[in-house]
Amino acid sequence: MQVSEMNTERAGGGATVRRLRADQARRVADILRHQIRAGTVGETLPGEQELAAEHRTSRNTIREALTLLRDEGLIDRAPRAGTRVAARKFDHGLDALLGLQETLEGRGTVRNEVRAAQRITAPAVVARRLGLAPGEQVVYLERLRYLGDQPLSLDLTYLAPEIGARVLAHDLAHTDVFVLLEQLSGQSLGSADLAVEAIPADRHTAATLDVPDSAPLLMLERLTRLDDGTPVDLEYIRMRGDRITLRGSLSRAIPEWKVL
Amino acid sequence: MQVSEMNTERAGGGATVRRLRADQARRVADILRHQIRAGTVGETLPGEQELAAEHRTSRNTIREALTLLRDEGLIDRAPRAGTRVAARKFDHGLDALLGLQETLEGRGTVRNEVRAAQRITAPAVVARRLGLAPGEQVVYLERLRYLGDQPLSLDLTYLAPEIGARVLAHDLAHTDVFVLLEQLSGQSLGSADLAVEAIPADRHTAATLDVPDSAPLLMLERLTRLDDGTPVDLEYIRMRGDRITLRGSLSRAIPEWKVL
Repeated sequence: MQVSEMNTERAGGGATVRRLRADQARRVADILRHQIRAGTVGETLPGEQELAAEHRTSRNTIREALTLLRDEGLIDRAPRAGTRVAARKFDHGLDALLGLQETLEGRGTVRNEVRAAQRITAPAVVARRLGLAPGEQVVYLERLRYLGDQPLSLDLTYLAPEIGARVLAHDLAHTDVFVLLEQLSGQSLGSADLAVEAIPADRHTAATLDVPDSAPLLMLERLTRLDDGTPVDLEYIRMRGDRITLRGSLSRAIPEWKVL
Repeated sequence: MQVSEMNTERAGGGATVRRLRADQARRVADILRHQIRAGTVGETLPGEQELAAEHRTSRNTIREALTLLRDEGLIDRAPRAGTRVAARKFDHGLDALLGLQETLEGRGTVRNEVRAAQRITAPAVVARRLGLAPGEQVVYLERLRYLGDQPLSLDLTYLAPEIGARVLAHDLAHTDVFVLLEQLSGQSLGSADLAVEAIPADRHTAATLDVPDSAPLLMLERLTRLDDGTPVDLEYIRMRGDRITLRGSLSRAIPEWKVL
């Protein structure tokens, strides 16, 4: 007999049952989603009955959980083939400041479609964040970044003028900007300030990144400094929510270098 | 005369013009979005003409950028009132491990609607991550977390059995679980592993968090350990994408404590 500690079928009232089942389905879906992301399940998920036993819930709840994951594009379900993992995601490290190519090393080749690479007059806020005078020129890059055939992110980049001008002379299709910044400055990068949001893809961006309209994107705003503290690189990075997970670790205490 | 370095109106071909204008609108929208988030603009945005001069682009492009931000729910536009900021977001720190109430200190009162607080048998993956034997009990919490009247996040929490049982005896409506874990264990928290994704709100979650269906959510999976390394708290946290920004800093080198 199946132990059903949270078995909705025994609760009274149709609306309550549906709500409780939806709560449980979400709970199960969160665990399965993480297993799929972390690669701890194979290409095919266990059957409904096995999952129901594992999560001590009903098959109806399992079906509802699998529907949630299918709607997110994570799994495919077919009558006889069972439930297959449809899309693997890639981890992007949050522990250290890495370019996309560095972080995906060994996962495939990153290729950049360079959509813009030019000098522009810095909007006031960009000038301020890069420590420039109002009206100074910056180098603006727009790159659509692929891993193999898949677009992963769309990066809008503002570079400080001197180093930016030198970056323009290099192969932007196959090299991370971070790597170029270190080569050209003769310094390693220092620290970066980061803001992470979830935003919907507008229609134009959705077409660019090959996702449905309003698909959730991870939006990173990142200001990167050289080791001597000079801000050189302000980026607005849209990552496909269905393809990238940011992964890192935190400690309860603020690390010393962040306090300094 | 307006300098239009990237003025689409001068480019040839209707489709190309539309694409270029959409590219520029996105570029402008990213900068404005960040200014709104960071609170560096007031309640009302500058007029279209001023924005067009600032970003060296056309008023049509500015209008398109403002439409993008309106569609994200960030601003309201009215014929005479101009463009007003509709929604402020809250920063959640990524630099240190903080509970929601700690991170929002001074922004208002966090209140938790406790939707579940009970012992359950741990699903295998939960048991494994918390360092428990298969089939052990854990404490499961489900909390809808409000700042004032606004739901901000929905947190599904699995706690190690002993400390979890003691947490159950406390006021979960008004206290962060992190604070309770430290009080009850007599240790400070140590480190946490974190995964951040952007996922769409399923219908049930959308209703719970009071957002439209498929609205983008920040999904955090977080495993937190006590200072002595014991894993005690596995959480699946859905944050409203329109209300929370994760903010932190990174260094090029992996900090020493993360390598250990």
